[in-house]
Amino acid sequence: MSPEAPAKLPRIVIVGCGFGGLEAARALDGEPVQITLLEKTNHHLFQPLLYQVATAGLSAPAIAAPVRHLFRGQANVTTLLGEATSIDAAGRRVLLADGGALPYDHLIVAAGATHSYFGRDDWAPFAPGLKTLDDAFEIRRRILLAFEAAENASDEQARRAWLTFVVIGGGPTGVEMAGTLAEIARHTLAGEFRRIDPASASILLLEGGPRVLQAMPEDLSAKAKRQLEKLGVEVRLDARVTAIDSAGLEVKSAAEAHGTSVGSYRIDSKCIVWAAGVAASPLGRQLAGATGAQADRAGRVVVQPDLSLPGHPEISVVGDLAAAQSHAAGREPSPVPGVSPGAKQMGRAAAANILRRLAGQPTLPFRYMDYGNLATIGRNSAVVDLASPVGHFKFSGYFAWLFWLFAHIYFLIGFRNRIVVLIDWASAYWSKQRYARVVTDIAPPKN
Amino acid sequence: MSPEAPAKLPRIVIVGCGFGGLEAARALDGEPVQITLLEKTNHHLFQPLLYQVATAGLSAPAIAAPVRHLFRGQANVTTLLGEATSIDAAGRRVLLADGGALPYDHLIVAAGATHSYFGRDDWAPFAPGLKTLDDAFEIRRRILLAFEAAENASDEQARRAWLTFVVIGGGPTGVEMAGTLAEIARHTLAGEFRRIDPASASILLLEGGPRVLQAMPEDLSAKAKRQLEKLGVEVRLDARVTAIDSAGLEVKSAAEAHGTSVGSYRIDSKCIVWAAGVAASPLGRQLAGATGAQADRAGRVVVQPDLSLPGHPEISVVGDLAAAQSHAAGREPSPVPGVSPGAKQMGRAAAANILRRLAGQPTLPFRYMDYGNLATIGRNSAVVDLASPVGHFKFSGYFAWLFWLFAHIYFLIGFRNRIVVLIDWASAYWSKQRYARVVTDIAPPKN
Repeated sequence: MSPEAPAKLPRIVIVGCGFGGLEAARALDGEPVQITLLEKTNHHLFQPLLYQVATAGLSAPAIAAPVRHLFRGQANVTTLLGEATSIDAAGRRVLLADGGALPYDHLIVAAGATHSYFGRDDWAPFAPGLKTLDDAFEIRRRILLAFEAAENASDEQARRAWLTFVVIGGGPTGVEMAGTLAEIARHTLAGEFRRIDPASASILLLEGGPRVLQAMPEDLSAKAKRQLEKLGVEVRLDARVTAIDSAGLEVKSAAEAHGTSVGSYRIDSKCIVWAAGVAASPLGRQLAGATGAQADRAGRVVVQPDLSLPGHPEISVVGDLAAAQSHAAGREPSPVPGVSPGAKQMGRAAAANILRRLAGQPTLPFRYMDYGNLATIGRNSAVVDLASPVGHFKFSGYFAWLFWLFAHIYFLIGFRNRIVVLIDWASAYWSKQRYARVVTDIAPPKN
Repeated sequence: MSPEAPAKLPRIVIVGCGFGGLEAARALDGEPVQITLLEKTNHHLFQPLLYQVATAGLSAPAIAAPVRHLFRGQANVTTLLGEATSIDAAGRRVLLADGGALPYDHLIVAAGATHSYFGRDDWAPFAPGLKTLDDAFEIRRRILLAFEAAENASDEQARRAWLTFVVIGGGPTGVEMAGTLAEIARHTLAGEFRRIDPASASILLLEGGPRVLQAMPEDLSAKAKRQLEKLGVEVRLDARVTAIDSAGLEVKSAAEAHGTSVGSYRIDSKCIVWAAGVAASPLGRQLAGATGAQADRAGRVVVQPDLSLPGHPEISVVGDLAAAQSHAAGREPSPVPGVSPGAKQMGRAAAANILRRLAGQPTLPFRYMDYGNLATIGRNSAVVDLASPVGHFKFSGYFAWLFWLFAHIYFLIGFRNRIVVLIDWASAYWSKQRYARVVTDIAPPKN
């Protein structure tokens, strides 16, 4: 395709520009290959901070870097804006939404995940999830307009429904969303309304399982719950959502032991955020079908130890789209968690294995280096579980929050963005204000 | 409406939160009145920098401040998110899109202007104008995606059409847009594409009249034109657009003397920006009809010397919606230009006249203080025409650009925004990069 590049160089196509695809392309810098990086949007999104865009703490450009710009200096990368609709594994081509096709000699599929409603896609209009910038804008809009609608509400019942915010799912995103919502209600909007008190808003975090942050050790989950409650979030565990509509949701409480509520009940709420489930990109099932690979229940492609597909050594799957195992010497294989370090490491490993194949060497099994886990909860609150060769360091509270902050800023793509985010946060921290309270469409939410 | 405020305080409704409405509300700080500030979006937009959002130099939150936040400390202001559909002048009520009504004792209408296609609204899909943040996002999207489409174009003719950018209208917005487009093509995107050279893009600025920046002295118009040309913009004067469609536009050249082109001709372009005309908000004609006031051709309401309407001293119109005259002692009345200092001064004057009426004093005629005029052209280029009691100071070039920069940052609402804009610009200046190159919808433009 590129007239400058000699046709003989091996053609590598990378589908997707999240952490996995980006790291794979970077790992091939300077190599005698011809890379086409296919991206569905024009930017790499730093997803761990997307909830900050949704809660008006950051502007979109602060966490999104143009992919083309990131690779301007890497001559072997051609960035292509377009969407892969399927993989023609037999013909070794990626088929595009615009009707075109990208031939490849090696393929890395890093198409990521989207949110899943566990078969209840009809809930989507009432409880948007958070995966893209557009999702974040929609959630931001609903949060800010809910307070406006409460200010204008004619009766107390309607006002309560507008001031009841429900976050479904107690994973990292749900915890961050709930904690930040509490901060908005109690601090950001203080004094701005004349008829309502924003601090009277109810922030509910519903988790279907017995604890929040289930990837964390149990004691940190308990600490996170206490910190959330201190911020003003009502955490309901073993609370399963059975219905969502335009006026609220139905919840079934599985654990009478927890005592907060028993049986089925209804919550009237006009602002519901879905942070409960992820499903792999539909490309996963299509690819599995085309290659004879397995797809797991979430639609992820089950990969070989070297991240390639059975019978298709020229295809690797990385990141959230891959059901991958870590193969550490002398240990049982263990699943790679769906976190950004996992995606980055898989991207680099897949790239390295392509180079090994090109050099006629055997590929290597993937080994996940676990550096631990961290989650923020809100102002001054986070939990950190650091893995090290000598064991785990666990801590929580203010120091954990600082650690979380600097880790995230450090890993942000692009020096410019880091400064902006740091300033935005410093300013938000001292002023308790949130910078990006901009809504362009004031039509009421469709629910 | 507000249960806390005693019902006896005079009720002032201000429609619109641009420069005029904002200043009117601020000027009433601490006064024994009860103000309802009606806003159509949740933010005050610093419109002079909107072109920077459209050209990816600034993020939206950098130039948009939540109105509710700006007035959190002013107890006599209630901010209300909603849209005025008409004024019931006889019943002294503002009717709202949601079916509600706002009664008033005094009304200030500051609903502003939108772009006008001079009766050719069918051109709108092919040549978006720039008045709101959504407009800016759409133009940003078209600019960035045009370069992407050019990179993917299969033939040279299509590539040229994608790389031809046409700005219609040589006022301040058109000049800024054209100059910044040239900067993007020549600097920002340098080295990022593999098949096209972004610097080969054509940037055309079409002006129907004989010079750009017609509000400026003639010599500054000529300087601005030369600076634009130095930046790589092709300026065509006396060039009237007669048709716009999805593939380009038709132009009629009125002045053979200018020599650039004679008669009618066609330009193939896939990215056209409309910066040619403004029309008052439709509320203007409605208000004129309801009160017996005159509306001018652009739909602006012709106001009395004190900015009120004939027979309706309780209604004032300010800002871009008003056809107002400046009444300086010993001089003929002269029209107030449609610039932000004019709107701000009118807002303050209307508020002061309300207070005078409440005190039983006669109102004062409006006098516009002209501090001059300034327009930026692009990197390091601007023209400034400063008015002072001892005459006009005119200058252009780098120093004028610095002056323009600091004037705009100084007048930005909110200290936080000023810092952000300054950092964004410093960073853009040194790196020649543009920070906000984010597009969330990569569907091709509808034209």
